[in-house]
Amino acid sequence: MKILFSFLPKPDQQANLIAGFPNAEFIFQKPFDEEILKSADIFVTYGEDLSASHIESAHQLKWIMVASAGLEKMPMKEIANRNIIVTNVRGIHKTPMAESILAHILSIKKSLPIIAENQRNGEWSKKVNSSELFGATALILGPGAIGGEVGRILQAFGVYTIGCNRSGDLANHMNEMISFSQLKEVLPTADIVLSILPSTTETRHLFTYEHFHCMKRTAIFMNFGRGDVLKEEELLRALQDNRIAYAVLDVFENEPLPKGHPFWEMNNVIVSPHVSSHSSQYVVRALEIFTKNLTMWINENNQMENLIDLEKGY
Amino acid sequence: MKILFSFLPKPDQQANLIAGFPNAEFIFQKPFDEEILKSADIFVTYGEDLSASHIESAHQLKWIMVASAGLEKMPMKEIANRNIIVTNVRGIHKTPMAESILAHILSIKKSLPIIAENQRNGEWSKKVNSSELFGATALILGPGAIGGEVGRILQAFGVYTIGCNRSGDLANHMNEMISFSQLKEVLPTADIVLSILPSTTETRHLFTYEHFHCMKRTAIFMNFGRGDVLKEEELLRALQDNRIAYAVLDVFENEPLPKGHPFWEMNNVIVSPHVSSHSSQYVVRALEIFTKNLTMWINENNQMENLIDLEKGY
Repeated sequence: MKILFSFLPKPDQQANLIAGFPNAEFIFQKPFDEEILKSADIFVTYGEDLSASHIESAHQLKWIMVASAGLEKMPMKEIANRNIIVTNVRGIHKTPMAESILAHILSIKKSLPIIAENQRNGEWSKKVNSSELFGATALILGPGAIGGEVGRILQAFGVYTIGCNRSGDLANHMNEMISFSQLKEVLPTADIVLSILPSTTETRHLFTYEHFHCMKRTAIFMNFGRGDVLKEEELLRALQDNRIAYAVLDVFENEPLPKGHPFWEMNNVIVSPHVSSHSSQYVVRALEIFTKNLTMWINENNQMENLIDLEKGY
Repeated sequence: MKILFSFLPKPDQQANLIAGFPNAEFIFQKPFDEEILKSADIFVTYGEDLSASHIESAHQLKWIMVASAGLEKMPMKEIANRNIIVTNVRGIHKTPMAESILAHILSIKKSLPIIAENQRNGEWSKKVNSSELFGATALILGPGAIGGEVGRILQAFGVYTIGCNRSGDLANHMNEMISFSQLKEVLPTADIVLSILPSTTETRHLFTYEHFHCMKRTAIFMNFGRGDVLKEEELLRALQDNRIAYAVLDVFENEPLPKGHPFWEMNNVIVSPHVSSHSSQYVVRALEIFTKNLTMWINENNQMENLIDLEKGY
């Protein structure tokens, strides 16, 4: 049984895998060797390095473990045609992303960028205009595992949480739920508007200039889902027109954000280079899920975690 | 009845006071006029502008409302001799301080200063080395109203909280309690060490170089209590020796922190100019406490809130 990784766990993590599965042959390569993929049974990847032609020539491949939540860059049709199993690490982002989102919200509310700038200038200034998170209202588009975790923590800070999804059906840690069609009615009440929506035909360009126009001028817009939930030119216009106060962006229409893009230099925009899910614990947790699933796979147990329905794509 | 303020609430807040107490004469001045203090019945102050000689000549003065928690700069002996009532705004700092403390912790854990620096340089870099708050251990020196609020929120993030006070007696939202004498035993387990201790004879220089020596090299030290809990030269040495990873300081031995002090330029020190308790809601909450107490005072009701015991000083 040949297991090819296209990323490099730490030496002790590699050693643990090898010791834990003595009958498996582990190969760790970054980038991976296409020749080796041809004879691999299992491929462990971040999900951004597989093409349709790889799948065609990977005759032994039975299982792809994607150590990421997004599968957009995977040749799903070809994988489905070959009946290759796909698993991912759904839920793994919950903790680091909720922490990142709260870090950005609190940093803005408590004026940390201004405090840092004053320190760089050697200036003791008490005029930093901090405000409070307590008593604020947050609107969370896409309240799934991550949004629910954000909602749980926001509620601990005394924030009123409104979830927004397609159906308007109940989600965890939301004081209230609305559907996409009610968005414009509720936007005027929100101090924080956070999208964690995936990229689907329904969410693409869901958020328009008109939506920003409905928001409080003091509101913070945050995108931690996918960049194509809006046209960046519309967000840019909303910021330039002071329709909203701040944007915190972890995702963009084009990543990396191109050099010279106006966002880089705007002091009411935070450019976070798609790192909110990063964590020192990320690979640890991904390998936990993998080793659990590998044990089941070896034992032909079909209760593997995070199996992807290749028809639905999630 | 003459009420002198030595700070300026917003015009609508001033108007509300005047409308709410038509029999009182309100005077708002910053700085205040010493002549007017001589005939004032009530003085409302942030507590940093009163001298012993002021008290001596303020013959009508019966009540000093301090819109702050610290009373160190008040001429307490002279006030006590005159039997002037003192009230403060104890507890008012709980929410903004807990939010500020969490903002700094999360900002460091999620590498926000590095993300900001990369943005200033127009650099899309995913190498930001974020870590997680989840699963960390926090040691909180002085777990009173503020520390308890910090503990409550840290626990929501999955942090194990250890409170430390003189007695080791139970405090709210602490998984464990220790006394000052057990500090060195417990310091090696803490990822975050936070002092919210007031300045007393017992807490002065409580924290020494040896304590930093006991800490994890990856630990963050935070001082949001009073600057004299340590000698700054010892903290500086601990940082220079890499005994600890980071210091976040909202209070200092001398405030403002003098120009040219090494802390200004150290990239593992955050200089927050004693603003963690600031909030857009601060004066709103202080005036709520004041108007409630003023109504009682007028009605000669002795249930006033936050009365200070002038013997104990708190």
